[in-house]
Amino acid sequence: MESKIITGSTAENEAPVRFVIEPSEALEMMKELRLSSVMELLPTLLPAVKRMARAPISSYHVGAAGLGESGRIYFGVNLEFPGLPLHHSVHAEQFMICNAVAHEERAIRCIAVSSAPCGHCRQFLQEIRNASEILILITGSGSGSDFRPLSSFIPEPFGPPDLLLDDEPLLLEPHDNRIEIIGQWDGIKGAARRVRDAAEEAARKAHAPYSGCPSGFAVADGEGRVCAGAYAESAAHNPGMGPVAAAMAAFVAASGGAWEEIEEAALVEKEGAVVSQEGTAKLVLAAVAPKARLLVYHYRTPDAL
Amino acid sequence: MESKIITGSTAENEAPVRFVIEPSEALEMMKELRLSSVMELLPTLLPAVKRMARAPISSYHVGAAGLGESGRIYFGVNLEFPGLPLHHSVHAEQFMICNAVAHEERAIRCIAVSSAPCGHCRQFLQEIRNASEILILITGSGSGSDFRPLSSFIPEPFGPPDLLLDDEPLLLEPHDNRIEIIGQWDGIKGAARRVRDAAEEAARKAHAPYSGCPSGFAVADGEGRVCAGAYAESAAHNPGMGPVAAAMAAFVAASGGAWEEIEEAALVEKEGAVVSQEGTAKLVLAAVAPKARLLVYHYRTPDAL
Ligand SMILES: [Zn+2]
Ligand SMILES: [Zn+2]
Repeated sequence: MESKIITGSTAENEAPVRFVIEPSEALEMMKELRLSSVMELLPTLLPAVKRMARAPISSYHVGAAGLGESGRIYFGVNLEFPGLPLHHSVHAEQFMICNAVAHEERAIRCIAVSSAPCGHCRQFLQEIRNASEILILITGSGSGSDFRPLSSFIPEPFGPPDLLLDDEPLLLEPHDNRIEIIGQWDGIKGAARRVRDAAEEAARKAHAPYSGCPSGFAVADGEGRVCAGAYAESAAHNPGMGPVAAAMAAFVAASGGAWEEIEEAALVEKEGAVVSQEGTAKLVLAAVAPKARLLVYHYRTPDAL
Repeated sequence: MESKIITGSTAENEAPVRFVIEPSEALEMMKELRLSSVMELLPTLLPAVKRMARAPISSYHVGAAGLGESGRIYFGVNLEFPGLPLHHSVHAEQFMICNAVAHEERAIRCIAVSSAPCGHCRQFLQEIRNASEILILITGSGSGSDFRPLSSFIPEPFGPPDLLLDDEPLLLEPHDNRIEIIGQWDGIKGAARRVRDAAEEAARKAHAPYSGCPSGFAVADGEGRVCAGAYAESAAHNPGMGPVAAAMAAFVAASGGAWEEIEEAALVEKEGAVVSQEGTAKLVLAAVAPKARLLVYHYRTPDAL
């Protein structure tokens, strides 16, 4: 159910390219193209996906397609945010993984991408269990046409095993962070209520084992479309995906619409968080969604109550 | 001369570990340790360097030492900024490279680092010409004890050659961006004047070929110590080092002091910059240097006048 809210992978979707392909659809596409495996299908999808990139700064468009263990295919494109530092950019691989997270996909094992993944993305992918075995195909020129393991693109990685115990959940695995929002918010109704609930739900599912500060962000446009993003931390810090960026990606996936149509936004984060998203949320909204009203909700973990 | 201002690599420096070692000092150290090459010296320096890391979030301390073609050795440590998203973190390798940039070092060919470089840093290093040949030694356990080329840590990289012409200057090469600050600022004197001049000089030297928006940032503490940071862009966007982060690193290198002692700050950036650092500058200062006064100066390129 949530998957519909978050990425709009429904037939009613207005986006020219949808960002999730169901297994049955993938099979149909394979038949049409006379392909014998879904791995062969992935690269054929990229030219259409790439067109959805939003790269007003670089004009460099990247598309990624990842095959989940559910049989679904998830797309991602790169996003750039004019007026902000470049570290706000979202890469296609990150977009695709956050898309899979939003759909509660539990493993991504094959990725096709239209350009060589940058080091930042090779690092981000380390947050997935057995990351070194993820198979990657680069369709750009001169890169061969084989899927090769991530370990051949980033040997001897730094990653979760350097910092976490083996039994802690990694990025695509179930998270259920215990959070209780502080304060009375009974007056919050309508779209504001829906974005708050979506942000809270995202915060529960966020992957933040390094800071202990899971957070979620959600936005709604004037038509009541609600899109949420869960924070996805990286062992290496910088390559993580903040909840605001994740929600902005979800909005692109859901609506194909423009961020300036966003009217409501909600951030749910820890009281006194050592890693706080509030300032960044304001900065991003001011730059790309100036109409948006932001409400910030703080939570305590039940243990701390 | 600027090197003294920026990193305080002088005998008067109060920091317990200095962040630049002169060739003559390196020779002396080699003699004391009975080492036959400076490459052998690099890893021996890391335990002391690591102690200077500021990692209040992760408690994970990293040190890096890079050998410049001048014979100087540059140090770097990781920095974390409580209260801000993790993408503000500065990695030891980035700190070290920005330190070298500030000293107008033209090439770094050997790096020793105390932990496996993350993908973000492997990408950042791509901004150096012939990056694939940079030799890297990881001193952490289980990583062997040989210097190996960066190409073996990030094969088939995405980088400047994917986006730039061959003759454009890369990160450690001379830059002389043409900028003319807009407006009359005759009333700006004392420390405010010195930080403005330092930020302007940094903006001239910044590496921003992807956005065309070079910028510089500088800070001063109550004792008149001025530290500047030049923006260092990455072809992959996110792994770049913003001017604010670069200045914060320079402040650590120069003073070993605490950011809360910063009183004056100046940002020099392009009018209407598509990649603007202003919001981030305010966010970072509010989080770590709340006493600081920030003045923002915009420039036009002479062609645009
Ligand atoms: Zn990337
Ligand atoms: Zn790193």
